[in-house]
Amino acid sequence: MPETNRRVLLARRPQGAPVPEDFRLDEAPLPEPAEGEVLIRHRFLSLDPYQRGRMDDAKSYAKPVALGGVMECLTVGQVAASRHPRFRDGDWVLGGFGWQTHSARPGDGLIPLDPAEAPPSTALGVLGMPGLTAWVGLTDIGQPKAGETLVVSAASGAVGQVVGQLGMIAGARVVGIAGGAAKCAFIRDELGFDAAVDHRGDLDAQLDAACPGGVDVYWENVGGAVQAAVFPRFNDFGRMVMCGMIAQYNTSRGAAATGAPPGPNLGPVVRKRLRIQGFIVNDTGWGRYGAFRAEMLAHIAAGRLRWKEDVVRGLDAAPAAFIGLLQGRNFGKLVVALD
Amino acid sequence: MPETNRRVLLARRPQGAPVPEDFRLDEAPLPEPAEGEVLIRHRFLSLDPYQRGRMDDAKSYAKPVALGGVMECLTVGQVAASRHPRFRDGDWVLGGFGWQTHSARPGDGLIPLDPAEAPPSTALGVLGMPGLTAWVGLTDIGQPKAGETLVVSAASGAVGQVVGQLGMIAGARVVGIAGGAAKCAFIRDELGFDAAVDHRGDLDAQLDAACPGGVDVYWENVGGAVQAAVFPRFNDFGRMVMCGMIAQYNTSRGAAATGAPPGPNLGPVVRKRLRIQGFIVNDTGWGRYGAFRAEMLAHIAAGRLRWKEDVVRGLDAAPAAFIGLLQGRNFGKLVVALD
Repeated sequence: MPETNRRVLLARRPQGAPVPEDFRLDEAPLPEPAEGEVLIRHRFLSLDPYQRGRMDDAKSYAKPVALGGVMECLTVGQVAASRHPRFRDGDWVLGGFGWQTHSARPGDGLIPLDPAEAPPSTALGVLGMPGLTAWVGLTDIGQPKAGETLVVSAASGAVGQVVGQLGMIAGARVVGIAGGAAKCAFIRDELGFDAAVDHRGDLDAQLDAACPGGVDVYWENVGGAVQAAVFPRFNDFGRMVMCGMIAQYNTSRGAAATGAPPGPNLGPVVRKRLRIQGFIVNDTGWGRYGAFRAEMLAHIAAGRLRWKEDVVRGLDAAPAAFIGLLQGRNFGKLVVALD
Repeated sequence: MPETNRRVLLARRPQGAPVPEDFRLDEAPLPEPAEGEVLIRHRFLSLDPYQRGRMDDAKSYAKPVALGGVMECLTVGQVAASRHPRFRDGDWVLGGFGWQTHSARPGDGLIPLDPAEAPPSTALGVLGMPGLTAWVGLTDIGQPKAGETLVVSAASGAVGQVVGQLGMIAGARVVGIAGGAAKCAFIRDELGFDAAVDHRGDLDAQLDAACPGGVDVYWENVGGAVQAAVFPRFNDFGRMVMCGMIAQYNTSRGAAATGAPPGPNLGPVVRKRLRIQGFIVNDTGWGRYGAFRAEMLAHIAAGRLRWKEDVVRGLDAAPAAFIGLLQGRNFGKLVVALD
């Protein structure tokens, strides 16, 4: 039986939380690389919360995935057949190849990866979009200073774990918010955060203990009850880095939107001179990728920066893993490994 | 009968909206200037919304007025007796002298005013704290660009009228929100705003018509229903300059606080990359007063900048005028003229 390209398609737009029936596994013939293209065998797919937005047909910063189209993601693969002079079989490459096992792409658009420099899957995490997101948001908005308190939600996740560690490197007191004892132990004991707050427990009491001097920088990944608990704790001149609000991704968008819940009263923004700012890494991040990567590699070499991946195996596992990601069931950067 | 110093004291902390009984008129002997001081006869008192915050015993960016203390304000006066070598009788000066007819102050702390350059009362408005507030907030946060749409609330007020005119000078499409036909006619026909929205009418329909291309900069003076109507209209990369939220000054602070109403869901801050930022003019404004004043005087000389004052007469009228200010009853920069 000849090898085929196995793919995960968007079968229908979710009504609220995605369910397995919103995805469809599909097989297609292996794509044929044209002159100047390469055939890529995918090795790691990146599953990230923003992909929930692509499943809705709502106005956003990026086009939705078409119905029946291949789900989008960043992908690390190896060249399986090259018709481009710069690439040879076995070369590692990065690109937006989607939830599928193979693709054929022009060699000129591919980003080569050096496996001697870092494990290739890190191009999807600490050295990739999530890491760059953390770096851009802290550099441009959060700007934690020595002695300040930085609180990060979804702290064991792909972005949060980098945010917290970069905060520690900047000399801030870092408090991570995560769900459950295992994640809290990880960020506190393995990553070295100053304190961990379990959002399944009493948020206010834990934040009282973890942030005795208030909050200077809050990295927002989740929204909802966590946001409501952190917001009143801002010190004067606090910064709220708006990276995402995963708690409402399933309810506030698309055809089945139940209406977004209200947010905080903005009176303290005036009195405390707060800055609440959103950003999308694609706007300005990739143009600074070189500076980011050099800095991160130096931190890794010095032992100041670690990462944790949550690896699931096989394309068939991707839909369930993604559904779990939106419920906080992943533990670390979620990656699908293909063989 | 010898002349006395008539004063308005804070008789008690307001429960919600201030009422006349929260103030007390009082007479004291004329203060005696010590060596190096001058006796000042006050000519204009500035009434501004921030003074509501000073009446509460709540944590804020400035100390509250003490019970039984003189209400605070910026004041323009004339030297009535000088024991300082730099000042002579009749000289015009600016300072925080409070709601009273006279004060004795060290000459070294006084800001001299030149009545030949601009009418002295403008030191409380277009060339004073409100004008500087508009300039700082637009320079640092709003940054309106040619072709963008700037919406300003409380648009005929002391700050709003300057915000709108500086927006027009920057080439923005300027939409003012004000209460009632007279204020709307003023900002549209006399100041030249591109459109006026009466917040007593159908806000959504009027904003639809006035902002066909969405909103790039929103200057927030009021909060409440106006904020809720403008917020969903932000374009990508919109800026919300948080100057004040007068709609809730009487309900969200102090002992009688009824609890601040919820604000907008912050999901769009991520998707649209919005920036919501508060500021207090005293933080960084006065250090740049020279640059501000030079720019404003040039605009005035060129006929690009006008101002409207709402002048009430006599110290006894101050409490009622201030109560009305918090209800939007003033029309222009509210000033108390003393004779």
